[in-house]
Amino acid sequence: MRTTRTELYVDRYAERTRGMTASEIRALFAVATRPEVVSLAGGMPYTAALDHAAVAAVTQEVLRTAGSDALQYGGGQGLATLRERLVEVMAAEGVPATPDEVVVTTGGQQALDLVAKLFCDAGDLVLAEGPSYVGALGAFATYQAEVVHVPLDDDGLEPDALEATLERLASGGRRPKFLYTIPNHQNPAGCSLSGRRREDLAEIIERHDLLVVEDNPYGLLDFKGELRPALRSLVPDRVIYVGTLSKILSPGLRIGWLVAPEPVRDKLVLLKEAADLCQSNFTQFVAERWFATQPWLQQVETFREVYRERCDAMLAELDASFPPSCHWTVPTGGFFVWVRLPNGLDSRELLAKALSERVAYVPGTAFYAGGGGADALRLSFCYPPAERIREGVRRLGELLTDELELVNAVYGRRA
Amino acid sequence: MRTTRTELYVDRYAERTRGMTASEIRALFAVATRPEVVSLAGGMPYTAALDHAAVAAVTQEVLRTAGSDALQYGGGQGLATLRERLVEVMAAEGVPATPDEVVVTTGGQQALDLVAKLFCDAGDLVLAEGPSYVGALGAFATYQAEVVHVPLDDDGLEPDALEATLERLASGGRRPKFLYTIPNHQNPAGCSLSGRRREDLAEIIERHDLLVVEDNPYGLLDFKGELRPALRSLVPDRVIYVGTLSKILSPGLRIGWLVAPEPVRDKLVLLKEAADLCQSNFTQFVAERWFATQPWLQQVETFREVYRERCDAMLAELDASFPPSCHWTVPTGGFFVWVRLPNGLDSRELLAKALSERVAYVPGTAFYAGGGGADALRLSFCYPPAERIREGVRRLGELLTDELELVNAVYGRRA
Repeated sequence: MRTTRTELYVDRYAERTRGMTASEIRALFAVATRPEVVSLAGGMPYTAALDHAAVAAVTQEVLRTAGSDALQYGGGQGLATLRERLVEVMAAEGVPATPDEVVVTTGGQQALDLVAKLFCDAGDLVLAEGPSYVGALGAFATYQAEVVHVPLDDDGLEPDALEATLERLASGGRRPKFLYTIPNHQNPAGCSLSGRRREDLAEIIERHDLLVVEDNPYGLLDFKGELRPALRSLVPDRVIYVGTLSKILSPGLRIGWLVAPEPVRDKLVLLKEAADLCQSNFTQFVAERWFATQPWLQQVETFREVYRERCDAMLAELDASFPPSCHWTVPTGGFFVWVRLPNGLDSRELLAKALSERVAYVPGTAFYAGGGGADALRLSFCYPPAERIREGVRRLGELLTDELELVNAVYGRRA
Repeated sequence: MRTTRTELYVDRYAERTRGMTASEIRALFAVATRPEVVSLAGGMPYTAALDHAAVAAVTQEVLRTAGSDALQYGGGQGLATLRERLVEVMAAEGVPATPDEVVVTTGGQQALDLVAKLFCDAGDLVLAEGPSYVGALGAFATYQAEVVHVPLDDDGLEPDALEATLERLASGGRRPKFLYTIPNHQNPAGCSLSGRRREDLAEIIERHDLLVVEDNPYGLLDFKGELRPALRSLVPDRVIYVGTLSKILSPGLRIGWLVAPEPVRDKLVLLKEAADLCQSNFTQFVAERWFATQPWLQQVETFREVYRERCDAMLAELDASFPPSCHWTVPTGGFFVWVRLPNGLDSRELLAKALSERVAYVPGTAFYAGGGGADALRLSFCYPPAERIREGVRRLGELLTDELELVNAVYGRRA
């Protein structure tokens, strides 16, 4: 059929991030979702830990007291009363914002899509951590933006590397449209930007007049409830902040939001309207009533405890079962552990074997735009119970140990 | 700040379709939503006629029996069980489709957005009826597509004009990416494509190898329950069909869908995932249970009766109050009447006066991409009760009569 740039990029993106055809992907997912397979692949919140009865009660209240409005179209910026609640949610994390600066979006994903649509022409540059969130890379790709990765380590994005990248680009006459970053409990790397680096980063952002897209899905899921200053609080005029209810309430409501200075916010509202007219009033009313009437921070604490326990289980089993030549991050919150493999092992090639050992993960290649990541993989501890996580990590550890022995036997000890 | 083509188009679009600044628009909407103003402007379904208790019961069933899934992420193509129900909805209208061809979207609007994203590069041509749905023009504009209008009359899109447009474009070496059309109870024109013209159109589509985006929000809202053959049923391989639950159930659920041949469907699923990951599982489960357990066609019949009564009221009052030099369509379904004004009257200029007479409408200019429409306006009969509609039409009729007298007094009788 007809070919557009978008279509080409969709093809390339599908090929690059998955490294397989659509039918192979379907086959893989079909295997990965079998009950006997322990999936450490997905990033699904454990919605069973949500108080369903409370959600049901809130929903009934909405339909009883505001049915006609809840079942009607809404405004492009999102429900005003919900925007007030979202400001309270941000305040709980120390993120400054006013309801007027907020635009409700279909999850954080749509916020990223709209920002890319507004700022990126074909060939424009975007900076992102390497590795970075696969959905963000996907959104940027459909606008034909070119992603340049900036490395991170256990303390998050490396400010020196950012500075060097900006200078290298500037010397070639290029300038990124924005820096996309997940400072807290990063997806996929599981690390957080240290306090010192936040200040360094703020200084670089100011000096280079950089626009930042700060994505913060996991900030409230710090296992100790520790809060770190958002970039939005350090350099508010230069940050478009992105939040979501997917991890502190439910991804099934598809409610996220962005916070942007007024001129940009106005344009993003117009793009939101062009994309899907408006957010679901029904789910917005339910979310608004949730935060207005339920002990929502207590629910967040419940989620935190679930994920802390599962993370502990994963880390204990990694210590027990994984070859010592692997390196992994030690998360203090969020959903993910990032594992770097020793030389000779390729996470993409290992996936089929892992699946036949009944354990699934996401190869690191999914999290890089321009190749790379074959030496790493992402493990999620958010969904399966602790015992299943230990079993999955054990299976994967045995596979890696076997594979490593094979590699060492053939090529000599390289790891 | 930084400027992209998208940003420029957003600016131009905002300016063109509204003809006023953002603050003027806000002021206008603030006035139009005052209780003393009869709004014949919006296209909101009358959700009060929906059986709210039934929606509440269905929602409770969903949360009781499938809470964890309903509050979880879903797949990019949409819930398989819902796609089966949507096929049944289409079957009720004689539209052939399989669940596998369906992609669930955020209303019909997102379907239009994704199709434009897949097919349109900057400067590409799209054909649309003149006038056409403002939201479609908005979606196409954000991908910098150029819309060429094909005129319609009381029998819908004019096949001869379509053929002439295609030939004129071809002689300039240009070819449209697709034809966007609303064959049933068109928005804003309120007309439907006649049976004979459907056959003529199908023949032209085949002969010119044209891709068609068939948007059908109002097909089931024919006042007599009359069904017309969908283009999808006449030339299935050349049609991407777009449906929505907004008019037969609730716009607050934000559920629409598209039907596309497999290779195109695969790409659209990838674009859907990049845009917002997935549809709300919560609202999808509610919709699925609605169609599975409720007398949904009876609800459609209730809506039909409401709109038929309101349309009758509007047409009676137009006959009674409007200057005879106005022409309006006589809808057989849907939400809208399209009024053409006599020479000398400008619907954009009249809007402020209409608002001060406490009646609102949408100027025809909103429904044309490249200028035009100042001689027309759209009246909606979907939302206010019949008596309010009569009052609003009466107020507008008086204003038009006064204005016309003034015009004739100054310029002589031209209308």
